[in-house]
Amino acid sequence: MELESNREQLESRIEERIKRQLAFLVEADLLKNVLRRTMLTDGSRQENSAEHSWHLALTAMVLEEYASAPVNLAKVLRMLIVHDVVEIDAGDTFAFDIAGNATKEEREQRAADRIFGLLPGELRSELRGLWEEFDQAATPEARFANAVDRIQPFLQNRETGGGSWHIHNLSREQVLARMDPIRTELPRLWPTVITALDELFSKRSE
Amino acid sequence: MELESNREQLESRIEERIKRQLAFLVEADLLKNVLRRTMLTDGSRQENSAEHSWHLALTAMVLEEYASAPVNLAKVLRMLIVHDVVEIDAGDTFAFDIAGNATKEEREQRAADRIFGLLPGELRSELRGLWEEFDQAATPEARFANAVDRIQPFLQNRETGGGSWHIHNLSREQVLARMDPIRTELPRLWPTVITALDELFSKRSE
Repeated sequence: MELESNREQLESRIEERIKRQLAFLVEADLLKNVLRRTMLTDGSRQENSAEHSWHLALTAMVLEEYASAPVNLAKVLRMLIVHDVVEIDAGDTFAFDIAGNATKEEREQRAADRIFGLLPGELRSELRGLWEEFDQAATPEARFANAVDRIQPFLQNRETGGGSWHIHNLSREQVLARMDPIRTELPRLWPTVITALDELFSKRSE
Repeated sequence: MELESNREQLESRIEERIKRQLAFLVEADLLKNVLRRTMLTDGSRQENSAEHSWHLALTAMVLEEYASAPVNLAKVLRMLIVHDVVEIDAGDTFAFDIAGNATKEEREQRAADRIFGLLPGELRSELRGLWEEFDQAATPEARFANAVDRIQPFLQNRETGGGSWHIHNLSREQVLARMDPIRTELPRLWPTVITALDELFSKRSE
């Protein structure tokens, strides 16, 4: 009798847990509607943060060998998969938007409270921890992941002849500063970045 | 002198290698334009295969504990990230499209030749191998990944009151057969599927 009731309690706790996990996954769908400034390579539309996160994960898989320090790829992938989830509430803050970046941290912390808060305890801590690690860029995995988050938009902008850099009238120096994690974390790729910027910004100043 | 020339040869081989890797990553962008039948949960548009792949990776991270056999999550994530890349050429084949599924394998093999063929040798084998492993659904990781590829569209369809199932006039039996990997690989989630199908298909037959 007591066993039966313990079993029922356990079942109902698992059911409750599953409900929370599924509610989080349903909520995550909204990231597909968060638009970034970056355009697709065919210039047809802005990229959304969900497909961007997928592209970063693929980029990490393909460029891992160039990381300036050895990384745990599994951790990098998990980090990249959750790193933009807070944008569901906080929106994508354009790297060059000064006003937006002044309030970004507070907006994102509130978003993290609500969105990761949908999950049960240890999963909440795990996913929020991955997001914070990415944000602080202090571990080899987080630094590599941040460089990956520069090289992918770099490629999209290069393929669209300057893309969001030109649309938003950025200078070569602004873009160069933004790309700097590539110089330190993916040094083998830095010449590719310089060559493209020389090309794109010299055309522009002619 | 000879050292210098060896060094130059090595540099030019690395440069060539990087070019191939970046060309693959640029090509991958096209997956964002491949539309699936599944709708976003707000019903606003069809989901694309890139954002779908991201959502699957997140789902695997959140539901790993329910896998019926222990899995290597890193491998599952890598598999889910590449599993739809061939759709850039082959398109998304709707699970219930009999004519489409008759030619699917041949179309996808050709697509794999071309798209993974953009990559240098061992990366090409690695990524193609992950895609084939997913497709064959013979390892614990591939079986779990396939179940994840059922539960995510299940959630999107549940949230849109039947979504693509109703739009394409599928029967409860057709959907149930399609969802079967959840029964075997994520058994804890099976009651959730049954409850939703009972609800969605009883309404429909009224």
